[in-house]
Amino acid sequence: MVEYEAPLRDYDFLFNEVFDVTPTIKRLGYDFDEDFLSMLAEGWADHAKEVWLPINQLGDRVGLKFENGEITMPQEFKDAYKQGIEGGWFSTSTKPEHGGMGAPIFFQSVIWGEIATATNMAMSVLPALTLGVYDVLNEHGDQVLVDYFSSNLAQGHWAGTMCLTEPHAGTDLGIISSKAIPQDDGSYRVTGTKIFITYGEHDMTENIVHLVLAKTPGSPEGTKGITMFLVPKYLPKDWKSGDLDGLSHDLMQEHNGVTCAGSEEKMGIHASPTCVMNFDNSVGWRVGDLHTGMKLMFQMMNQERLATGIMGLGLAEIAYQNSLAWAKDRRQGRDLRGPKDPKEPADNILVHPDVRRMLLEAKVNNEGCRALAAWTGILLDQMHSDDPDEVEYASSLVALFTPIVKAHFTDVACETASTCMQVMGGAGYCTEYAVEQFYRDVRISKIWEGTNGVQALDLAGRKITQNMGKNLRHLMWPLTEFIEENRDIPEMLEFNKPLHQGVRGLQQLTLLMIAEGQANPHFLAAGATDYCRYFGNVLLAYMWAKMAKKAMEKKGDPFYDAKIASARFFFKRIYPETVSLAAKIQSGHKSVMEYPTEMF
Amino acid sequence: MVEYEAPLRDYDFLFNEVFDVTPTIKRLGYDFDEDFLSMLAEGWADHAKEVWLPINQLGDRVGLKFENGEITMPQEFKDAYKQGIEGGWFSTSTKPEHGGMGAPIFFQSVIWGEIATATNMAMSVLPALTLGVYDVLNEHGDQVLVDYFSSNLAQGHWAGTMCLTEPHAGTDLGIISSKAIPQDDGSYRVTGTKIFITYGEHDMTENIVHLVLAKTPGSPEGTKGITMFLVPKYLPKDWKSGDLDGLSHDLMQEHNGVTCAGSEEKMGIHASPTCVMNFDNSVGWRVGDLHTGMKLMFQMMNQERLATGIMGLGLAEIAYQNSLAWAKDRRQGRDLRGPKDPKEPADNILVHPDVRRMLLEAKVNNEGCRALAAWTGILLDQMHSDDPDEVEYASSLVALFTPIVKAHFTDVACETASTCMQVMGGAGYCTEYAVEQFYRDVRISKIWEGTNGVQALDLAGRKITQNMGKNLRHLMWPLTEFIEENRDIPEMLEFNKPLHQGVRGLQQLTLLMIAEGQANPHFLAAGATDYCRYFGNVLLAYMWAKMAKKAMEKKGDPFYDAKIASARFFFKRIYPETVSLAAKIQSGHKSVMEYPTEMF
Repeated sequence: MVEYEAPLRDYDFLFNEVFDVTPTIKRLGYDFDEDFLSMLAEGWADHAKEVWLPINQLGDRVGLKFENGEITMPQEFKDAYKQGIEGGWFSTSTKPEHGGMGAPIFFQSVIWGEIATATNMAMSVLPALTLGVYDVLNEHGDQVLVDYFSSNLAQGHWAGTMCLTEPHAGTDLGIISSKAIPQDDGSYRVTGTKIFITYGEHDMTENIVHLVLAKTPGSPEGTKGITMFLVPKYLPKDWKSGDLDGLSHDLMQEHNGVTCAGSEEKMGIHASPTCVMNFDNSVGWRVGDLHTGMKLMFQMMNQERLATGIMGLGLAEIAYQNSLAWAKDRRQGRDLRGPKDPKEPADNILVHPDVRRMLLEAKVNNEGCRALAAWTGILLDQMHSDDPDEVEYASSLVALFTPIVKAHFTDVACETASTCMQVMGGAGYCTEYAVEQFYRDVRISKIWEGTNGVQALDLAGRKITQNMGKNLRHLMWPLTEFIEENRDIPEMLEFNKPLHQGVRGLQQLTLLMIAEGQANPHFLAAGATDYCRYFGNVLLAYMWAKMAKKAMEKKGDPFYDAKIASARFFFKRIYPETVSLAAKIQSGHKSVMEYPTEMF
Repeated sequence: MVEYEAPLRDYDFLFNEVFDVTPTIKRLGYDFDEDFLSMLAEGWADHAKEVWLPINQLGDRVGLKFENGEITMPQEFKDAYKQGIEGGWFSTSTKPEHGGMGAPIFFQSVIWGEIATATNMAMSVLPALTLGVYDVLNEHGDQVLVDYFSSNLAQGHWAGTMCLTEPHAGTDLGIISSKAIPQDDGSYRVTGTKIFITYGEHDMTENIVHLVLAKTPGSPEGTKGITMFLVPKYLPKDWKSGDLDGLSHDLMQEHNGVTCAGSEEKMGIHASPTCVMNFDNSVGWRVGDLHTGMKLMFQMMNQERLATGIMGLGLAEIAYQNSLAWAKDRRQGRDLRGPKDPKEPADNILVHPDVRRMLLEAKVNNEGCRALAAWTGILLDQMHSDDPDEVEYASSLVALFTPIVKAHFTDVACETASTCMQVMGGAGYCTEYAVEQFYRDVRISKIWEGTNGVQALDLAGRKITQNMGKNLRHLMWPLTEFIEENRDIPEMLEFNKPLHQGVRGLQQLTLLMIAEGQANPHFLAAGATDYCRYFGNVLLAYMWAKMAKKAMEKKGDPFYDAKIASARFFFKRIYPETVSLAAKIQSGHKSVMEYPTEMF
């Protein structure tokens, strides 16, 4: 029996109390209020718990079947997916004109995302990728492509993928060799092999819409020469040449030269296909201008990076809930200060400080990440404001937060899954309890959508200097204001003081990284991972100080008292890692770079 | 293709140069010299690489088969095991009178153990457990039991297990309910259910010898009332009652009331059975005195704890070697200071500081742990000295090091396996490359033989105060001497100074833990895990300073220069975590214990 309750109370606290989201979404023109959003969250939580969660272990055990170029998903997954379409659960944030609900982005990206990945990570990626394709298409595609594909993507009838990686080109997309040859009718013929394509092939939907990066003849070397193409698995039945204007949604029986050559055997997410895709003279259409493929793909990629971070949170949360359930049942040993339940043969393991430490590390990191996720989600909506200042502010922070949410959340999530397994001892290692699946599933999140090392480089090497450092200044403003506001509030001292120290430390480390990095980029790259983790901790510290502040308004209520106790745990037992991280960054690159390469 | 080369060069450096083991083993009366031990290590490395390694992935994929109470192992495992017996590879350290080779314990526990677990962890546990049973039996068993069982155990013809855990009693053995009823003929009838019994049932050997903890009628409550019994799966054919004196080694066809009720499905070590064992009025014989079961089992347990720590090292080493092989082949991106291989489309990923950081973290932690393992292995031999002072010194250090080797090595090993997977990106997550198996397999090592939290409590709550603090004093003596010796050697400053700081920090933290722990044991328990990790880091710091010192004698030779560079990396990029650990310990127990239990 796998336990899961969606953290609806926490969402309410974050969105309505800590971030007071209603005025913002009203101002942004959403026709949604607090109550409706709560109802929507509850409805989705119920659906995910009733339909997705019960088949999650089955998905792990049975997995997918690859045969003759086709992938067959477990029937239970197909049924569940169909129910999701019928319930409108894949179209909460797509446009009403495409059959969507047009809910705020934060609902989809944070609430939907966390619950989806917690209850069935393998399944969750399919609608998440589809939404990414829908969004890129709608923002950059020609009207005729938008018209033809949007409704089916918006409602989940057709699925989407992103096709970037090639066997020799993963992180380094500049060296891809897929080709797209322009045709007289305005279409292209796309040829190449892509690997690690999530849901590249499956039988959950009637059609699969691939966004493929390729190079056109004579395009510049490197990433500058890359263009994005839309290549459907099946073409419309009545298509002969040219564009898709007015064509029916009935599909040809023959593949559009798109074949799946295999699916990787993986450590986890067994019900999420990871495909080798061959495009052989496949008909495709350009999305966006020539040579803008990287920019467009990065728009989708950034969305998926945030989604991956939140996936870490989802899995860490369900791992926590299941190890907690175990701990509540398990009796071993005695409270060191004397038996708590003398009538029982042993006390519950929650009496043991080290067990509590583990559970609190999990819980407090989860809630801190959730708060930062909530803020980021709201910023995603603010990026669509009519006010250019708000757009700039929100875009700057999202640019800054994206690598941190991706890397810090998933690093911490993998540690949390391990900690939760540890709470359970031998049982945690057994398949009977689902935590071992979460431990395996969540591990991909550190790799997906750019490894966490790449995220750290993006943060340290790009995001902090981007726009003349504006990203960071936009963050420092609310941070400094908060610290000033709370400087003289005695009960905030225990949170505000270390936060202030952390922010000062972050500023010093940032200056060090920039200064030394200019002289030698190896310095910056050698410290990037530790810098990203330092930054993540400072943001979580801000979140915890903010939550504690809000909770103090309702002291005496157990929910709010627990928040204050959690904030205290964060500052005492998690945050101190910043001290070591600073020391490692300051130690520079020499110990890393001067090790003789031939002696590895 | 899985890569593995046993670290023979490193063993040579450690045993012969850093610890100069030959005079010690001569003094202890072993008839072994440096050359013979090198040959033995080479022979074992060849056997493990040729026989064990090629079937390791098969073991993971095929696993074991449980049917009608019997476990069938893959035929390849049975063949390999037989070859191991024939080669004498399971009897290197057992006594010559039982057909063993009588090699020094360090050979078996460190060199044999690391290579065995690296090449085939699932297989390695069988001979390791058997040896544990052999040793306990020989030290504490009645002569008639020793005579009957030893030769078959010593050579691996029969296997051994330790049966402690029951469904309701894992860490808390005081509440076990297995019973042993004394019989008139001097034997016992043992009844009870034991879970998580590694190799509790299998078809690798003709017989399985279980050491079972149980309670005799009227024995005291708790761990004080526990006695150890030897219960074979099969009794001798000609046994009717009484003891085993002079009986043949031909066995009955019927089980001795010992049945396997199932084997757990686990995340890893699929070819290592984890059994539910039922003893139903099984014939057994007492090992050692009544009510000494815990003490005796702990002797075996301590041996297995060290073995588990070294298993962590073995898996971390093979994970490192395979991620390194990948990294050497993989070309992505360019050196940030300009292309290294301009003729290639991309540079090798070893140019990237963050990739080097990951590989060095793995390598340097592995080599540091190996050094501490080597020292511990030699101390195990010294425990058998004729000189009571040497025995006391060695026993004290082994008592202190056991929880650290178990917990620190395995914590670090799990992190290392993850780091190595990360180096490989998506490939690391795929089954095709074996690192994902190592990642799953190694995870049990944090749980086995007492979770790492239990190890930390053993260290902080028992080992540092045991014998009036003598354990710690025996460590401080060589540490202080080393620091003094190197105080004025300029090239040692970069290692000696932080080592000195760490040792002082350790002393202060120890005093804090003892003082505060007396007032409130929760303080001690809340800080135990961080304290254990701090201690582990200080010991590795000592090892690295010692290795650097030795390496300086041969500066200019690439092997020794790499050791100095590794020591530098350790002090710059790993050791600084001690600062955070100290802060967490000092923050005390309140943030852990005052969180309201009902709000978890």
